[in-house]
Amino acid sequence: MARKSSSNTAGKPIRCRAAIARNPGEPLVIEEVMVAAPKSREVRIKIICTSLCPVDVTFWKSKHPPAIFPRILGHEAMGVVESVGEGIHEVAEGDTVIPIFLPDCSECTDCLSTKSNLCSKLSFSISPWIDREQTSRFTDINGETVYHFMFISSFSEYTVVDIAHVTKIDPETPPERACLFTCGVAAGVGAAWKKANVEAGTSVAIFGLGAIGLAVAEGARLCGAKRIIGVDVNPDKFEIGKKFGVTDFVNSRSCGDKTVSEVIIEMTGGGADYCFECVGSTSLVHEAYACCRKAWGKTIVLGFDQSGAMLSFNSHYVIDNGKTLTGALFGGLKPKSDIPVLIKRYMAKELQLDEFVTHEVDFKDINNAFNLLLEGKSLRCVIWMNK
Amino acid sequence: MARKSSSNTAGKPIRCRAAIARNPGEPLVIEEVMVAAPKSREVRIKIICTSLCPVDVTFWKSKHPPAIFPRILGHEAMGVVESVGEGIHEVAEGDTVIPIFLPDCSECTDCLSTKSNLCSKLSFSISPWIDREQTSRFTDINGETVYHFMFISSFSEYTVVDIAHVTKIDPETPPERACLFTCGVAAGVGAAWKKANVEAGTSVAIFGLGAIGLAVAEGARLCGAKRIIGVDVNPDKFEIGKKFGVTDFVNSRSCGDKTVSEVIIEMTGGGADYCFECVGSTSLVHEAYACCRKAWGKTIVLGFDQSGAMLSFNSHYVIDNGKTLTGALFGGLKPKSDIPVLIKRYMAKELQLDEFVTHEVDFKDINNAFNLLLEGKSLRCVIWMNK
Repeated sequence: MARKSSSNTAGKPIRCRAAIARNPGEPLVIEEVMVAAPKSREVRIKIICTSLCPVDVTFWKSKHPPAIFPRILGHEAMGVVESVGEGIHEVAEGDTVIPIFLPDCSECTDCLSTKSNLCSKLSFSISPWIDREQTSRFTDINGETVYHFMFISSFSEYTVVDIAHVTKIDPETPPERACLFTCGVAAGVGAAWKKANVEAGTSVAIFGLGAIGLAVAEGARLCGAKRIIGVDVNPDKFEIGKKFGVTDFVNSRSCGDKTVSEVIIEMTGGGADYCFECVGSTSLVHEAYACCRKAWGKTIVLGFDQSGAMLSFNSHYVIDNGKTLTGALFGGLKPKSDIPVLIKRYMAKELQLDEFVTHEVDFKDINNAFNLLLEGKSLRCVIWMNK
Repeated sequence: MARKSSSNTAGKPIRCRAAIARNPGEPLVIEEVMVAAPKSREVRIKIICTSLCPVDVTFWKSKHPPAIFPRILGHEAMGVVESVGEGIHEVAEGDTVIPIFLPDCSECTDCLSTKSNLCSKLSFSISPWIDREQTSRFTDINGETVYHFMFISSFSEYTVVDIAHVTKIDPETPPERACLFTCGVAAGVGAAWKKANVEAGTSVAIFGLGAIGLAVAEGARLCGAKRIIGVDVNPDKFEIGKKFGVTDFVNSRSCGDKTVSEVIIEMTGGGADYCFECVGSTSLVHEAYACCRKAWGKTIVLGFDQSGAMLSFNSHYVIDNGKTLTGALFGGLKPKSDIPVLIKRYMAKELQLDEFVTHEVDFKDINNAFNLLLEGKSLRCVIWMNK
């Protein structure tokens, strides 16, 4: 049964504040925008808080498509449903939700399968539109179109998203933690838990201890991995990593005559059971593959290198060593079914994500969040819309 | 308790007939050879029958190392233990056994794990010796050393092998079927059953319907695959394939404007759940990977291309599609534990391998077996030592 919304604003455009990226690399400008009412199968969300992900920064800096301006960036967020469009039964006004960039139509073969998180009906892209019909729900005060980002655009007090991008969550979830379940941090945890399905008692090597790599460590810890080896060029990352279960550290710049893979093969007596590449470097994927355990070792590629970058493996080696190579978008997590499970495990204090939030700022100071990330000072900075 | 052998020949060299490859590509010569008594941890086997595998032909034709002459080729066989060396408790005189090229020391981490068939103690190679100390148990009538092949050398009435290469089997197993469990046919079945672990109701694409590809089909059929698509340049292979469960056929030379992968994606509505490359062509591995199902599809590389051939994949594609790539030696089968299980399933008529034996010859006609294979007329030709 469809519920009619009782909010005063339902069905009407909302005028509110948004942080607009007008030109590549220039500070965001907080302006008033008009957020249209949600159309059929859409939901308008009042954003409570949002966090800054390196992907936002990439498309803020970039001068080339799919970067486009003016645009409302932001895709990691938590909010409350303000109103819903026609045909929405899944959520109603007042529900606590998180928007997620990866679509989950709940209807196609993939969305109905427990083995896939890659919706066949709605493909994922860095779209400047809310939908596949190429329309926007944002206009600036001059009536000019403002573009969407990753189907989310959470750097706005209100945003409109397709129901395929909305996951209803436990309203008790702290907002500044809920937003961590929408992109990188969840992806890292999911890569260990869902895609690799790390077995208890095993060894894990993680190439790159940024937020995703640290989240992989936390996911591996959750799965009961015995040894979690972090690899990074910055030795300070070991201390941070320990908070997420990292037990050993390899500084890839201090391996002497050896390659990182040789060091890890020695440390583990034959190779790590699981290797995760979280930097976005094909040469590190090759190192990861080289040091994952023969016969049962899995290498999981998570980091995006340049477009067109190729991974190359010797054909005989692939056969003779029986190793497995795979990759994952959003860690293989299904937004609508797996994320509530992870939130439950967070609420039960099994999954520890608090340390990912290193900074919090008010919306008016959103550019500080960019500076903190660019200076390498933050893992995640939470931006509060109205605190 | 070690059992003393009671055979008349135990502890002494045996003079018997062997088919020796004296020069690359020249017909084998049946000569008398001396087969030394088994040393510690070795078993001397009276070969009942042996079958010809393309790998024998490769090393018979080749002029370059690891090809070497004079050599006793052959590695697919069934026999009876004639005598054993010191320290052998696993088998005794009179036991029915099959020698297997892949070692299984029963002691190392890998041999003790159900997840690996890649012994860490005894590495596999195309060795000209019986052991890692580089000795031979064969001499010709002039006292000159004759080399071993793949630790087996079954083209001889008697051979000596390390116990790590011996699997005891049910003596009721027909000899001319038992030898199929020692290399290619078992590897194909194992790749589907053990390495890919094909789920019931799924779709499988097999690139190359030679003996290994057909055995993959039989393994997939055994696992309950719903659709088994054979890909080959020879349309006659469909009829042969049907005997092993192949349900559909794609002639890779008659795909018109489409690639094989495009044809298979169309046929399956998105890609096959499992793709097996059995030809040894990196370009076919790329086609196989392209048409395995996004998210859960697995591509398993079984065919050996030229040494140094590289497999290349776009890094973003690996992440965005979540597919899995792996390879397998001997199909991931553990010689001493998995092979007896497969033989049991053969004896229970669940696994159907009879059609693999297309020809049978007497030992004196062993060169006919080579001709039949070279002319593409045989899948497996069984060579009887004394029938």
